[in-house]
Amino acid sequence: MTNTIGFIGLGIMGFPMAKNLLTAGLHLVGYDIVSEKVDRLMDHGASRGTSLRDVAESADVLITMLPDSPDVENAYLANGGILECMKPGSVAIDMSTISPVVAVRVAEAAGKVGVPMLDAPVSGGETGAINAKLTIMVGGPIETYQRADEVFRALGSPTYCGPSGSGQTVKACNQIQVALNMVAMAEALVFGHKAGVDPEIIVSVLSGGYAQSRVMDVRGPRIIKGDFAPGFRSKLHFKDLNIIRETARSLACPLPATSIAYEMFAVMQAHGWGDLDHSAVIKVVELLSDTQVHSNTHG
Amino acid sequence: MTNTIGFIGLGIMGFPMAKNLLTAGLHLVGYDIVSEKVDRLMDHGASRGTSLRDVAESADVLITMLPDSPDVENAYLANGGILECMKPGSVAIDMSTISPVVAVRVAEAAGKVGVPMLDAPVSGGETGAINAKLTIMVGGPIETYQRADEVFRALGSPTYCGPSGSGQTVKACNQIQVALNMVAMAEALVFGHKAGVDPEIIVSVLSGGYAQSRVMDVRGPRIIKGDFAPGFRSKLHFKDLNIIRETARSLACPLPATSIAYEMFAVMQAHGWGDLDHSAVIKVVELLSDTQVHSNTHG
Repeated sequence: MTNTIGFIGLGIMGFPMAKNLLTAGLHLVGYDIVSEKVDRLMDHGASRGTSLRDVAESADVLITMLPDSPDVENAYLANGGILECMKPGSVAIDMSTISPVVAVRVAEAAGKVGVPMLDAPVSGGETGAINAKLTIMVGGPIETYQRADEVFRALGSPTYCGPSGSGQTVKACNQIQVALNMVAMAEALVFGHKAGVDPEIIVSVLSGGYAQSRVMDVRGPRIIKGDFAPGFRSKLHFKDLNIIRETARSLACPLPATSIAYEMFAVMQAHGWGDLDHSAVIKVVELLSDTQVHSNTHG
Repeated sequence: MTNTIGFIGLGIMGFPMAKNLLTAGLHLVGYDIVSEKVDRLMDHGASRGTSLRDVAESADVLITMLPDSPDVENAYLANGGILECMKPGSVAIDMSTISPVVAVRVAEAAGKVGVPMLDAPVSGGETGAINAKLTIMVGGPIETYQRADEVFRALGSPTYCGPSGSGQTVKACNQIQVALNMVAMAEALVFGHKAGVDPEIIVSVLSGGYAQSRVMDVRGPRIIKGDFAPGFRSKLHFKDLNIIRETARSLACPLPATSIAYEMFAVMQAHGWGDLDHSAVIKVVELLSDTQVHSNTHG
């Protein structure tokens, strides 16, 4: 069904995603405020979008991959923004991770100008984006979801989560659980280390039983080596925890443990650890406890 | 190396463990303050221990499986207790889950009367005990651990964790991580439910990615059905969280998220949910949020 895909936002995630759409044989017009990124994508067969307006006007399916809620709101709703320029009957897909509340608001505005819209945030990180193995959580009209199937399959595995905002909600659930599984590992390792047990034994025993988590499988051994190279930067997870807090407030949904995780991620930002992997939350627990689980080989 | 095993404490865990030692062909003298439990074990080939003293005197390897720290302290250290009666050169193994601090104290007292001692708490629950698939976390002298290998292999998979108390420490780490992974799942599901998303979709998407945990694999689908049959009773995990708090205090080890988990488990006890599975911590988050994720089919 797809004629022209417009792709706005060619960052760490957006660039490899756009590339995978080109690899899948789709015609794509790319745009980013940094024009060098568009140049690079043209090497892979993309057409150049000269402006947000230009891309929005030419797209049958428009994809946005932007940093945060205000960027998405502004791109779609501002004067001269996306929704003023899109063809009726075309489809908008926002794949940024933003507030579910904002996602619903933008989708409603899109519906009013005859553009069905999906929220479709992803998990799987840069590696998942490069390898077309993203988990894609999709909210919006189910018939629009079905129309976008070809696009999603070129990027990873989509799951339909419900009406507008549902994709962002499931992404938020994911970020709650990942953050708290990270905190769980951090407190277990610091406690065990302070009591004098080798952290490798703790990771080995816990990973083999009911305490197992994917987070510990992937990051436990790296934490012990002091390797906090991202992965997923703590500042981005902190952004997501801010979205979760705002959304939880609007839902009247108290989240006591998530609020502790939020504060721990705030400590990471205060200490300049925003560009470390989010598993560096163990450094906060170490700071509290005046101890250090990991070696100094990485720092 | 084993001649006679003494086994004290034939409860939900101890009984099937003693039975597995008998199945492995070991000679075993069993004792419990409830004499009917000893009768039942005799049907499986055990000899009857008539008292704590009787079992301690006859054992080459003495195993205790008791409810809590004070029970273990009392059984070993009281006048007329285990340590007054054991043969020099015999071995004591406490497989109860108790405070690492108490484990060290009892092991030191045992060492003074010529009885090397291991702390060897288990995870895997009643099912693991019945199927001889327990994870066994062992602290104490390594040569004593090697002497006890035959016994441990008849019960599950042992890991040597370090000197006295290390087994209890790793068990405590395990209980921290399991409790917080449970809380993580609870907050994610309640948040998503309040935002209007089907919890089955949340479990399905999160289980397939970085948020995956064994706790969600096993309990996510049951929570959605409202099935909180234990498994592991919340009152026992609450006991373990008390041990963790006391130990953390003695180590000067702040654990902010674990303290939240502790309070949530305290709420479960206040509401009479002590005999539900520990995954029922979601009922606390539901209570806070005035919502209900699970159906009423189980109640």
